[in-house]
Amino acid sequence: MAEQSWVAGADESGFGLENLPFGAVSRAGGPARPAVRIGAHALILEPLAEAGLLGDLPPGALAGPVLNPFLALGRETWSATRARIAGLLRSGSPDQEAAAAALVPLTEVEAVLPIAIGDYVDFYSSIEHASNVGKIFRPDAEPLLPNWRHLPVGYHGRASSVIVSGTDVRRPQGQLPPPEPGGAPGFGPTERLDIELELGFVTGPGNALGTSIATADVREHVFGFVLVNDWSARDIQRWEYVPLGPFLGKSFATSVSPWIVPLEALEPHRVAAREQDPEPLDYLRTDEDWALDIELEVAIAPEGGEETVVARTNARGLYWTAPQQLAHATVNGTNVRPGDLYASGTISGPDPGSRGSLLELTWGGRDPLELHGGGTRKFLQDGDTVVLRGVAGAVSLGEVRGRILPSV
Amino acid sequence: MAEQSWVAGADESGFGLENLPFGAVSRAGGPARPAVRIGAHALILEPLAEAGLLGDLPPGALAGPVLNPFLALGRETWSATRARIAGLLRSGSPDQEAAAAALVPLTEVEAVLPIAIGDYVDFYSSIEHASNVGKIFRPDAEPLLPNWRHLPVGYHGRASSVIVSGTDVRRPQGQLPPPEPGGAPGFGPTERLDIELELGFVTGPGNALGTSIATADVREHVFGFVLVNDWSARDIQRWEYVPLGPFLGKSFATSVSPWIVPLEALEPHRVAAREQDPEPLDYLRTDEDWALDIELEVAIAPEGGEETVVARTNARGLYWTAPQQLAHATVNGTNVRPGDLYASGTISGPDPGSRGSLLELTWGGRDPLELHGGGTRKFLQDGDTVVLRGVAGAVSLGEVRGRILPSV
Repeated sequence: MAEQSWVAGADESGFGLENLPFGAVSRAGGPARPAVRIGAHALILEPLAEAGLLGDLPPGALAGPVLNPFLALGRETWSATRARIAGLLRSGSPDQEAAAAALVPLTEVEAVLPIAIGDYVDFYSSIEHASNVGKIFRPDAEPLLPNWRHLPVGYHGRASSVIVSGTDVRRPQGQLPPPEPGGAPGFGPTERLDIELELGFVTGPGNALGTSIATADVREHVFGFVLVNDWSARDIQRWEYVPLGPFLGKSFATSVSPWIVPLEALEPHRVAAREQDPEPLDYLRTDEDWALDIELEVAIAPEGGEETVVARTNARGLYWTAPQQLAHATVNGTNVRPGDLYASGTISGPDPGSRGSLLELTWGGRDPLELHGGGTRKFLQDGDTVVLRGVAGAVSLGEVRGRILPSV
Repeated sequence: MAEQSWVAGADESGFGLENLPFGAVSRAGGPARPAVRIGAHALILEPLAEAGLLGDLPPGALAGPVLNPFLALGRETWSATRARIAGLLRSGSPDQEAAAAALVPLTEVEAVLPIAIGDYVDFYSSIEHASNVGKIFRPDAEPLLPNWRHLPVGYHGRASSVIVSGTDVRRPQGQLPPPEPGGAPGFGPTERLDIELELGFVTGPGNALGTSIATADVREHVFGFVLVNDWSARDIQRWEYVPLGPFLGKSFATSVSPWIVPLEALEPHRVAAREQDPEPLDYLRTDEDWALDIELEVAIAPEGGEETVVARTNARGLYWTAPQQLAHATVNGTNVRPGDLYASGTISGPDPGSRGSLLELTWGGRDPLELHGGGTRKFLQDGDTVVLRGVAGAVSLGEVRGRILPSV
């Protein structure tokens, strides 16, 4: 039986002692302070560190406003600190009083973006998603391009517009595809605003420029995981993306869940990844199981209306795994820094109800979704709130939530 | 006649009072300190700011290690500070003694990367370059894709591997295109290591997420310009780039010149841009002339050998201008931050000797270049040093230099 916490309600919440995700909270617009979530509370870390209750940490490592200094310390420190925190929060802890003084109800604070993101990379690692997009965008061609099964296709996204769950998303405007080939583009708010259900990892210590990270070393470089909603304007994207890839169709916003679940907390939920055919090149091979058994769902609620779960899937179905993504991203010698974000790409499963984007769920707008309460959706409408959720057994990844504001 | 400086040799150096570019220097691995280049010297700014000689600046704005806090202050402060610096360095300045005490020969310091780059965007704004690449990569199709004349095509590059001139570049390795269609990829060091001659701008104050920057406001947001070498591994790029754009073929290194030439110094070198056909959408129109009359050259020197200038061109030939690039990049509401870098894309002219990449200069490797001393080049060899230089009348952009190290 799992150990119990003295924090009321924590054990059954998905944020018990098995989880202890890291984030940062701010009270009434005050400074952001690194914290660990336990149940419906945030445990503010800096006073505990100052009191010597978190072990041997460099001064200021948890002073905020972001976790980057802590992320830079590496796996042994992460693990030792997390063990200390678990000790403080365990039933019978001799330090319960000190810990209780650092506990704040989540209702009294705002969870803010806990990292300064150096680079944001987005992959394309679900074979069902890549195949569906190929069928929708290039109906007369082979759905998967020739490189897809040989490497985890990816590109750089925009770091400045990565926002935390709860931040509203303004419908972007831009150039829209010409009505007929060879014609002039239109201009206006996107008419095909979409979501992408993704899982992302946040890095700790990086590598020097000119070196690479081996798949076997992933635990030294990956701190933990968040849910990612890679908002997409499909019409803007379709017009702009040749030949250099997505730009404004993606860069207006990317939402992340606020609590970074440590890789250590997800270790019991590692499972065998699907078979890869052909077998990848040496630098992409792994000896361990690196798929993550995380149940995921997508829900949409119209303004003032109730929520409809429109998709359910599982991250274990991803074709390319996190160690493969990180090894690939650095095989050319580029350098990772603490606080980089690497997202999986849309996670879609084989069934129609397991697809992680509206593009796929409605098959390019052909088959509108029915919402509870009577509405339908091809793509998102102003006022819609989208919520992505994830859970791995007793370990919750929480949610990432965003509401669509009308274009300016 | 231009005003003269009391700093010996400054007036005719390209780094006289007309220029005054900003950067940062470090002595023997010590802390990086913001500085302005005058002739062959760096003027260290913080002691002058502390002595009240640079006007009304917030404390620490020039304390280093990067210029970002100064960049955030905006155009009026930039201009006033630059005027104060010009006053200190002008012949007959009453403060010559104080300024001389802050002057360090460039031979005694290292010019370091002076900005923390939030996001790095790379455009594709030369019509000759885009047409050449189209002809080389897609010989049977229309060279320019349908979107090219309607918007400045661009994508996000990697910020972590932006390096300052003088930093060696390790030849990247990675997956290479299959020898025949449908085959398995190769793996190894790139065999097609290339350069791209580009001009980049560095931003000051940004915009709030959800808003856009108008072309008319470019002076409020652009601090200045640097030379950019967007190193490229053409074989890695060709295999990976569909459908999400370049990734590892570019992310291993991007070199920039160390001294950011203020837009204010380039104002006298603004000229009419080439005609755009069709006329762009409203948000891309400008009332003023925004092409920059900057002469550019590319030189290659083999290990221990003399330099050959392999290309000469001019930035004024770019089809899309900086205000258009910035307006386009933000039309969807994404946010710019102080210290972002936006590069032009390869600058090529109409003549064979005016092309800004080896891919074009050798037409995909078909026509090797002759170097002085007898060697030839299809692409770069280990030990080669590449130097890009730029000059606008009396205002030098200096150079960006990099040497190729063998793959690990």
